[in-house]
Amino acid sequence: MNDRDRRPPFRKGGGKSFEKGRKSAGRPASRPFRRDREFDPDGPAILYGWHTVSAALANPNRRIRKLLLTENAARRLAEEGIETRVAPEIVRPSAIDQRLGPDAVHQGLLAEADPLPSPDIETLEPEGIVLVLDQITDPHNVGAILRSAAAFAVNAIVTTARHSPEATGVLAKSASGALEMVPLVTVQNLARALTALNERGFLTVGLDSEGSEDLGKVELRQPLALVLGAEGKGLRQLTRETCSVVARLDMPGEIKSLNVSNAAVLALYIGASRLRLMG
Amino acid sequence: MNDRDRRPPFRKGGGKSFEKGRKSAGRPASRPFRRDREFDPDGPAILYGWHTVSAALANPNRRIRKLLLTENAARRLAEEGIETRVAPEIVRPSAIDQRLGPDAVHQGLLAEADPLPSPDIETLEPEGIVLVLDQITDPHNVGAILRSAAAFAVNAIVTTARHSPEATGVLAKSASGALEMVPLVTVQNLARALTALNERGFLTVGLDSEGSEDLGKVELRQPLALVLGAEGKGLRQLTRETCSVVARLDMPGEIKSLNVSNAAVLALYIGASRLRLMG
Repeated sequence: MNDRDRRPPFRKGGGKSFEKGRKSAGRPASRPFRRDREFDPDGPAILYGWHTVSAALANPNRRIRKLLLTENAARRLAEEGIETRVAPEIVRPSAIDQRLGPDAVHQGLLAEADPLPSPDIETLEPEGIVLVLDQITDPHNVGAILRSAAAFAVNAIVTTARHSPEATGVLAKSASGALEMVPLVTVQNLARALTALNERGFLTVGLDSEGSEDLGKVELRQPLALVLGAEGKGLRQLTRETCSVVARLDMPGEIKSLNVSNAAVLALYIGASRLRLMG
Repeated sequence: MNDRDRRPPFRKGGGKSFEKGRKSAGRPASRPFRRDREFDPDGPAILYGWHTVSAALANPNRRIRKLLLTENAARRLAEEGIETRVAPEIVRPSAIDQRLGPDAVHQGLLAEADPLPSPDIETLEPEGIVLVLDQITDPHNVGAILRSAAAFAVNAIVTTARHSPEATGVLAKSASGALEMVPLVTVQNLARALTALNERGFLTVGLDSEGSEDLGKVELRQPLALVLGAEGKGLRQLTRETCSVVARLDMPGEIKSLNVSNAAVLALYIGASRLRLMG
């Protein structure tokens, strides 16, 4: 916590680019100070913004520790019949600005909450689609991916405990409420998790611009795991080797790779369409 | 310029959320100081990062005013046979950090360049796909959309001069070189531009969660204009009314709207597939 109390708990764009992840990848694991800032599993999740906070309040599995609301936000929640569950502290917008920094669009709502529990990978039903993220570090991208995952009724997202952004702040805001809807399965070792998925009958399809086949031409089936790597770095060697298939997304233009959240939504659309999960 | 010289020319995440655009939408047009900061058509485009700068150097239509390179970056350009066109200033990485702020991943390259000319909408060939952006203010999103547009061989992107991010800095970096590949047509009045597209034979399809039909079911044809609004705000009334069709993207999950760059790439994929432009 310590460090959090002194400065805004997250900076907009702080972990923006994959290259930053790459930079820090070589950082020795024995620097607890830096590691604490990256990953503090006991710290509260900081949730702000209308969609993010109202979805958290609607989620019975989310324990709210503290709720800061402006008068307007409190009125809007009441009007929409959303219970606050804990007594809110009514504050001026500037009090929330001070917590989050000037760039955070909080719309008058800030909650401190317990992080949601991470389900065990063995409990995943072998059906539908899951997404697997291989060290995607940018919280905006992971948030947008969560949002798309909720839009495509994905069953879970599997991420690594390290080299992944915490489920808080910018990530939660970019997810626009989806954090409450899609279970995040956090694993220590991604190759082992993929092996477990393979053993449970999942078709594990890695996405990579060097893939051997176009995703649109791969014979897909349920249960399906779509595996995405960080931009630039792509899938790690062992991740790639553990996937059943490595596929690319063929596109007609001059640029051959997409922003990772754009690649994710395209893979989801192709997967859900082919598996006739589009409803 | 003035203001730029004193602080980093763009903040990461500065214009991040549509709500910020919304906030400023009500700002009186008569405050030249604020407007200058938003849109300075004569100021240089600030380009940084490997893909962004190397693509600019490869673009004969891009006039480079000044080029800052680290020794490593200069060597890499030489190795890849990319001409610098102007004599680079060889600097330490920290000199570029100082210009851009600590969060910008510049990889040792920074260029000041002339903005690219905006083609006239009347010069657009009536074929293929164009994207039209209705006041999407977030530079990360617009950059990612540009990148997807280059990946799907889009002919042009039409944006409004006001309430759009400048083609510089974070936008250019997120576009990952695509700024040099996809012409940006900047217009004063979007409804008038859509009318011009309609008159030139474009099928203008607005995307909106309230659309009357699923995009997958709309009968598409070339030339096609896909029109996207800002998150939250969506398409403005007049934009919607000027489109030939307003379509939605049907998805099976609990969340019914996507991050705008994710919606854009999905619409592009559906459009390019249906028009058999996938190559």
